Amino acid sequence: MKLKDFSEDELKARQSELKAVHDQFKDARLSLDLTRGKPSAEQLDLSNDLDGILGGFFLLQDGTDVRNYGGILGIPEARQLGADVLSLQPSQVMVGGNSSLALMYNLIAHMNPVWQGQAQELNSKVKFICLVPGYDRHFTICESFDIEMINVSFLPSGPDMETIEELMVRDPMIKGIWCVPKYSNPTGHSYDDNTVKRFAELGKLAGDNFRIMWDNAYVAHHLTDKPARLRDLMALAREAGTQDTVVMFASTSKITFAGAGVSFLGTSEKNLKAFEKFLVPQIIGFDKVNQLRHVRFLKDLGNLAAHMHKHRTLLHPKFEMVQDKLQTAVGGKEIAEWTSPDGGYFISLDTLPGIASVVVELAASAGVKLTPAGATYPYGLDPENKNIRVAPTYPSLEDLEKALDVFVVCLELASLNHLLAQ
Amino acid sequence: MKLKDFSEDELKARQSELKAVHDQFKDARLSLDLTRGKPSAEQLDLSNDLDGILGGFFLLQDGTDVRNYGGILGIPEARQLGADVLSLQPSQVMVGGNSSLALMYNLIAHMNPVWQGQAQELNSKVKFICLVPGYDRHFTICESFDIEMINVSFLPSGPDMETIEELMVRDPMIKGIWCVPKYSNPTGHSYDDNTVKRFAELGKLAGDNFRIMWDNAYVAHHLTDKPARLRDLMALAREAGTQDTVVMFASTSKITFAGAGVSFLGTSEKNLKAFEKFLVPQIIGFDKVNQLRHVRFLKDLGNLAAHMHKHRTLLHPKFEMVQDKLQTAVGGKEIAEWTSPDGGYFISLDTLPGIASVVVELAASAGVKLTPAGATYPYGLDPENKNIRVAPTYPSLEDLEKALDVFVVCLELASLNHLLAQ
Repeated sequence: MKLKDFSEDELKARQSELKAVHDQFKDARLSLDLTRGKPSAEQLDLSNDLDGILGGFFLLQDGTDVRNYGGILGIPEARQLGADVLSLQPSQVMVGGNSSLALMYNLIAHMNPVWQGQAQELNSKVKFICLVPGYDRHFTICESFDIEMINVSFLPSGPDMETIEELMVRDPMIKGIWCVPKYSNPTGHSYDDNTVKRFAELGKLAGDNFRIMWDNAYVAHHLTDKPARLRDLMALAREAGTQDTVVMFASTSKITFAGAGVSFLGTSEKNLKAFEKFLVPQIIGFDKVNQLRHVRFLKDLGNLAAHMHKHRTLLHPKFEMVQDKLQTAVGGKEIAEWTSPDGGYFISLDTLPGIASVVVELAASAGVKLTPAGATYPYGLDPENKNIRVAPTYPSLEDLEKALDVFVVCLELASLNHLLAQ
Repeated sequence: MKLKDFSEDELKARQSELKAVHDQFKDARLSLDLTRGKPSAEQLDLSNDLDGILGGFFLLQDGTDVRNYGGILGIPEARQLGADVLSLQPSQVMVGGNSSLALMYNLIAHMNPVWQGQAQELNSKVKFICLVPGYDRHFTICESFDIEMINVSFLPSGPDMETIEELMVRDPMIKGIWCVPKYSNPTGHSYDDNTVKRFAELGKLAGDNFRIMWDNAYVAHHLTDKPARLRDLMALAREAGTQDTVVMFASTSKITFAGAGVSFLGTSEKNLKAFEKFLVPQIIGFDKVNQLRHVRFLKDLGNLAAHMHKHRTLLHPKFEMVQDKLQTAVGGKEIAEWTSPDGGYFISLDTLPGIASVVVELAASAGVKLTPAGATYPYGLDPENKNIRVAPTYPSLEDLEKALDVFVVCLELASLNHLLAQ
């Protein structure tokens, strides 16, 4: 039954009841954390064979000794793996260190002087479109380069392409857009064929040096038997003559070791050449030994998929439990809407407008840490103060259950407080 | 006997003789490389146990799982190792990825906006003092940030501190100085006590935000029984109240794997805090698994020194052979001066003024690649065209011998051509 259909007395009775439960949680002094999309120790265990997998063999087929200096674009075998993951040619792909974020940051650092020069000429500002809610670390990169962010909301079907296209036509200083095209962080959206096609066409509407930051962080991270199939953006861009607008990213952070994987950047050969030139002054080459470890361990797409299925086996019960808890506790009460993703690392939940931060505070006071309200928006500002990102991967199933028990109480209590105050 | 004391006829006879030898080398179609300071395969073999050393144990004493995300300053155990190497406190040290160059680049990227702002105010340019000959990659970083470089030559005793101090007093826009204080690249200088003390005092002469880029790349890389003892710059700087001017770097690139080691940055806690803030948007954390591998493998300073002794055993014969070949072939002829370093990776050789590039060309035509003449100077411009950096570490002893046979012929031939043309 919808909460708002209850009488005031009924609401107050429920409020007292939940306050008492909340007080009990406070007394229990819990310390649970649902903040970040980290893999659990059991997931990390799946890749323990990485350390020692080389067995003393450090030479590549082409004679390269991976222990020594050099090879800034990565070893050929790893570029091939990255190309397979991103559906690109190896000549379009470089392999970085343990952080795809660092590659994104550097790509922006590389482009930004050109963009800022144009902004100065037009007496304007460099702008990026940010699909919201989205990934906070994307937004932080923009902030650190003084790039203005324009929010565009997801529609139930995916990115609001019409609004994006309108913005692009109006303003040539829109120089980029952040995307997580598969199992989007945090909403779980996977872009449909038409959306990808329209992304490929964006370059035609854009000013010079526009870049689609296509962060395919969850490219192989399925949770169900309905894996999302993403249309080939680069192929469509080539048809449209916009291939230089496409920059793709992926990493093995949530495939092998979160902090010790390898990262991939894929773009046109022309862009890659320019980016390589930008990187040369700052690094002789990324860690090729770890690249070779990953090639030996992951082998190919088939083996990678089998490996990801082991992750799924560990993750699926956690996502299911969150769905069950939410459905049981607040289903039908019309105080929250949440996603049920087929992959990725998050569940995105919208509270009644204006109370996300209250829910987060109530949970914190009861020992459950949630991602700060607003974190999924540029500048940390959720204009409706309603989005909460739930990250169920890291805690044990037992801890997750406890945390959800607290969370649903906080969610309903904050909603009751809100309704009664109106 | 000095070459210039020979008669013209004698010189011409020798010229013909050497030309014939040079032609023979050309016919032999050699392919030898003395360009870069890379460790040899045998040196890399010394650290093969790194891969697999963790034996499935990934937890730190404090409970951190090194496989997961986080810990941007590095694991405590590795910060302790870096602190021992740099004679600092762990709280003053961070551990990066496989590239200390990347840390240097980022340190400059972090400071540069402040420096450029001041340059604009003063209608001036940001400037760095570069000790020459020096390390080309230091200079490339400055170039990429449009920082003007001012050459200061080494005296036989070390850096020309008087000139440096005069420059600093005259120009508040000198914002940094590059140093390799021990076994300097390429000259082999190790700074004496008085020099280090004067470095510590530079901050008193400098404008705001001056930084000493103290790249201690060869901190443990001794070649003889007379290891250089470097005075503690940070302790002296603390006394002088200039500790924020000190930024130290080191890495294990020439201790373990050149391309897959760990890097260290050490500075005041205040600076480190600001630098951490700068790094946060670009990376969640560096590779902690590899940091732990290095801690397990290198253990402590005593064990590290024992490990470096194995490198020395491999390197010493190579450096000795270069000395022997040079002494035998051109000793006493007064056509070249070269260093005989007690550590590090290079021998620095000065030809007669104006002919270094000719020697390099002659060697190249005979199949021996040398670092391009000028590479040891900012902008690749050696004003006297006389410095050549010889890197004897990478080739086998046999190849090195062949390469030196070619080199000394090219050196003498170029000198003869030069003297006869006068």
